Amino acid sequence: MKRVAVLGSTGSIGVQALDVISRHPDRFQVVGLAAGGNWRRLAEQARRFRPRVVSVAGSEDAGLLARELSGVAEVVGGADGATAVASLPEADFVLAAISGGAGLRSTAAAIEAGKTVGLANKESMVLAGELLMARAAARQVRILPVDSEHSAVFQSLAGHNHHEIRRIILTASGGPLRKVPAEVLPDVTPAEALRHPNWSMGDKITIDSATLMNKGLEVIEARWLFDVPPSRIEILVHPESVVHSLVEYIDGQVVAQLGISDMRGPISYALAWPDRVPLELPRLDLASLGKLTFELPDAERFPAFTLAYRALEMGGTAPAALSGADEAAVQAFLAGRCRFTDIPRICASVLEGHRPQRISSVEEAVAASAWGHREAERGVERG
Amino acid sequence: MKRVAVLGSTGSIGVQALDVISRHPDRFQVVGLAAGGNWRRLAEQARRFRPRVVSVAGSEDAGLLARELSGVAEVVGGADGATAVASLPEADFVLAAISGGAGLRSTAAAIEAGKTVGLANKESMVLAGELLMARAAARQVRILPVDSEHSAVFQSLAGHNHHEIRRIILTASGGPLRKVPAEVLPDVTPAEALRHPNWSMGDKITIDSATLMNKGLEVIEARWLFDVPPSRIEILVHPESVVHSLVEYIDGQVVAQLGISDMRGPISYALAWPDRVPLELPRLDLASLGKLTFELPDAERFPAFTLAYRALEMGGTAPAALSGADEAAVQAFLAGRCRFTDIPRICASVLEGHRPQRISSVEEAVAASAWGHREAERGVERG
Repeated sequence: MKRVAVLGSTGSIGVQALDVISRHPDRFQVVGLAAGGNWRRLAEQARRFRPRVVSVAGSEDAGLLARELSGVAEVVGGADGATAVASLPEADFVLAAISGGAGLRSTAAAIEAGKTVGLANKESMVLAGELLMARAAARQVRILPVDSEHSAVFQSLAGHNHHEIRRIILTASGGPLRKVPAEVLPDVTPAEALRHPNWSMGDKITIDSATLMNKGLEVIEARWLFDVPPSRIEILVHPESVVHSLVEYIDGQVVAQLGISDMRGPISYALAWPDRVPLELPRLDLASLGKLTFELPDAERFPAFTLAYRALEMGGTAPAALSGADEAAVQAFLAGRCRFTDIPRICASVLEGHRPQRISSVEEAVAASAWGHREAERGVERG
Repeated sequence: MKRVAVLGSTGSIGVQALDVISRHPDRFQVVGLAAGGNWRRLAEQARRFRPRVVSVAGSEDAGLLARELSGVAEVVGGADGATAVASLPEADFVLAAISGGAGLRSTAAAIEAGKTVGLANKESMVLAGELLMARAAARQVRILPVDSEHSAVFQSLAGHNHHEIRRIILTASGGPLRKVPAEVLPDVTPAEALRHPNWSMGDKITIDSATLMNKGLEVIEARWLFDVPPSRIEILVHPESVVHSLVEYIDGQVVAQLGISDMRGPISYALAWPDRVPLELPRLDLASLGKLTFELPDAERFPAFTLAYRALEMGGTAPAALSGADEAAVQAFLAGRCRFTDIPRICASVLEGHRPQRISSVEEAVAASAWGHREAERGVERG
């Protein structure tokens, strides 16, 4: 029996993880749940999965939730709630699925507490990958990827030799705007950019997918998760999102993981690792699909991913600053306060104005991200 | 330093294996070479790679070769030559690359001698897979696949749990006649059937590729090599031959191995396993390829592969009989003595006339194959 704490339980990944868990009550037991603001959904989850502890970010929500769950679960409120759930003594496995930079502190707490981490929060690696991987190594903590691309890389590395990796190839759907001509991109609306062809995800990541910033952030995540230099990490646009990613070895042979577009695949792989659990999902049927297509990413129309390589080159706090800038720029775009093409423009400008510093604590990473966020906000205001 | 004996050194796989070996003199040393009739090429190879022992099938050839290699290598002639090379005390690794049913005895000898076997001779598994795998298990001998599909499966199984396999999917190029309509197939010439789109191979296997019998024989090989029931082994036509094969697990996730169509990939993987060696081959470039296509095999036009499933169902000597029948039918087709569509027809008739017996020795497997060969010859003569 694996005892699981789910951070971000009411978000897209959290809900799907609980779906997987609910189908395997013999293998998984939920011991903690942490959510942001959706305390009603959290209350339902708590009644169903009976964790010992639940947390919600707002203290007012925590009060309402505590009344609701009286006699069911212990309720922790406030900013440290997720951290408390991440450190529960009875948890073996922490699914870090809080979205955005807000997920970093609780991921770090899970590592410090020696938990196996299922990492669905890519910002943890983007903001403080080097630091977290060093701490995880020191504490002999396993970080198992949950992002579909990184799960694919992880599955393609299993049983093969790390020092024989020639390159990691992260696939990208290309997003909903892949075929939109350059001159039309400035007029793209949030609704258009939110129409992801293959994956059902949150708003921020869907916009990041449309700009290809998401793939850039994934390059940063892969760089730290797999300890591979950025020059060996490439992006390949693959609109069908069937090949989830690939690893090429020194003999030219390529191992890849394929599947349907359903996050329960990679979520269950991390949860059950080193085993797998049966999932009743539609099967991948390549003959029915007929074909898979591939093309290079277009850095002219979608320059955001190149900023991630630039940030890795700058080092230190630069990726954190880029991540913060992107969060602000995407928020502004979704609120109709800037254009689609302003997102990479603003991020590039923030990055070029950044003076990278070495990161020696989570707080420094958070501060660099906040700095990037503020600078991007200023960029939005300047127009 | 791995000490390698190459059986079938002058054939297509043998020559490519020696090419790989020649590029890594620090890792591989050739200690034995065995060839069929091409003693001049064998003499060249012996002068270059300096094995202690070489063998050639004919005793007359052996005499000529012995004169040629006087002071260079010991020459063994006759039917037992390959068996002697397979059992050389100084060999760690035996590459079993003799083509056809003739390869079985020397593969068995390598297993009995406790050598790690790189298996490029699928007939060893087709004729006596159950027996050889049992002997290999008893002697703790590793059999590493060299066929590109089986190497792909092997690479896709590495690091994953065997009991979690849901299905093995062997890809097939579909061969040179994939798009030829049913009514034209009877008039296909050997030259047309020999025009394989992706792989450069021997004549027998190229015709088997055109009939899809090759894929059927590979199903039998996979059944024994990977200990997976036939109902879990499927065939998928993939004309580009880039995805070399796939494994689907119980969670629906699929791991696959991809690469260019160059046998030096799988050969080097078996040779160097559990490591890899760098190969200076063109890289797989999916963006340039643009697309990969997939379709189901057409059992109406190309029924040969279904006979392999039927033979496995019949059990015992049935696959050996089918293999022998196919050898005879393909020989007859290449000699202009029967039509392309007669190959599966004759094989089906031989199989249905076969009374399968349990195989308890290599000789029984050879005898069943010889029986199939004779019966098919009779079928050809009857027309």
